[in-house]
Amino acid sequence: MSLDADLPVIAVIGGTGKEGKGLAYRWSQAGYRVIIGSRSAEKAAATAEELQQLLASGGAASGMPNLEAATMSTVVVLTVPYEAHSEILKSIRPAMHGKLLLDATVPLQAGKPTRVLMPAAGSAAQEARRILGEGSEVAAAFHTISHDHLFKNDPIDCDVLVTGTSSEARAQALRLVTAAGLRGWDSGPLENSSVSEGLTSVLIHINKKYGTRHAGIRITGADQD
Amino acid sequence: MSLDADLPVIAVIGGTGKEGKGLAYRWSQAGYRVIIGSRSAEKAAATAEELQQLLASGGAASGMPNLEAATMSTVVVLTVPYEAHSEILKSIRPAMHGKLLLDATVPLQAGKPTRVLMPAAGSAAQEARRILGEGSEVAAAFHTISHDHLFKNDPIDCDVLVTGTSSEARAQALRLVTAAGLRGWDSGPLENSSVSEGLTSVLIHINKKYGTRHAGIRITGADQD
Repeated sequence: MSLDADLPVIAVIGGTGKEGKGLAYRWSQAGYRVIIGSRSAEKAAATAEELQQLLASGGAASGMPNLEAATMSTVVVLTVPYEAHSEILKSIRPAMHGKLLLDATVPLQAGKPTRVLMPAAGSAAQEARRILGEGSEVAAAFHTISHDHLFKNDPIDCDVLVTGTSSEARAQALRLVTAAGLRGWDSGPLENSSVSEGLTSVLIHINKKYGTRHAGIRITGADQD
Repeated sequence: MSLDADLPVIAVIGGTGKEGKGLAYRWSQAGYRVIIGSRSAEKAAATAEELQQLLASGGAASGMPNLEAATMSTVVVLTVPYEAHSEILKSIRPAMHGKLLLDATVPLQAGKPTRVLMPAAGSAAQEARRILGEGSEVAAAFHTISHDHLFKNDPIDCDVLVTGTSSEARAQALRLVTAAGLRGWDSGPLENSSVSEGLTSVLIHINKKYGTRHAGIRITGADQD
């Protein structure tokens, strides 16, 4: 699909990492204009270039430093290692007014990725909201999606739990989940992001215990029709 | 199936409630001796009587006050409203030495069941462990299973995430999950119980949002063979 000018422009902050690059790939394929953000303008540009080459019919990915990427976009997706989470949020805060932050960050413990430990704020996404301020709209999603899957064009056997500060923030995030070829579920207020972030540790444990690399979850007993 | 004397004796504390009664029903069917515990000896006896009548081939359910039920058992399952959790745990503590506590309690907020809020200890199960002491073995499971399902003999389309203080505690809990006709997953250390307890709020939200009563989860991408 080629670029659709009516769709929001998405900045993927941390878009040079595997998860961010995979999401950027899927949204570019779906016709979104995607801006890869990185602390390094060169790395951002190189990743955008890489994506352009992967995308059969063109696509419109570009690369910029984080703050510039956030400024140029209407939705900002954050896919960074937890260690960099606060610092990067503070650096893009001036550009966030009136924009949805979609946080995909998982607060894994160094050396203990199978053990849930949430930040004092309750979750990484709640911490993000504290940094951006009371009036900000924040959603959280994509924590449990393995980046391996994103570059394959096969259907992914894993649902996405979407939490957020308002029903509208969740609806906006759910549209991006669908655009990425995934099935998402409105999973309630941002406080519930501790569950979707923590599920990542549970799934890493299940991967180790049952000898797989692709444990995921599906919601059962509910329909979206 | 009739009573199997080699199986552990299970006390279900809070066994007069719907969830506890449903689990007691399933374990009785599987040949376990089950003791219903309640603050009221009369209520415990009445529930045991009710179960006896439901069980086609007899089964061995009896009813006793909580402390007595815990004393007479080898595994203690806790299915109580969160408001009663600490107090009941303190009351059965003298009987818990060397026994597994399997905590099914969900710390739902009064009036806000769709919003995750964990106790200061991190989760109800971690709070239970604080009360029982450092050396105690605690597992957590069954949070997301709707009691409606337990009395039906149909397969249940919902997996059970099992967390616990040790691999052995989780294995023992997993055997009881299987005996109840459910599929369980070793989901890691007891800290991860915040995820399985919190998932209950997420599923209640999904029930409301998508107009169902039976949302559940399945683990995908992993096998148990």
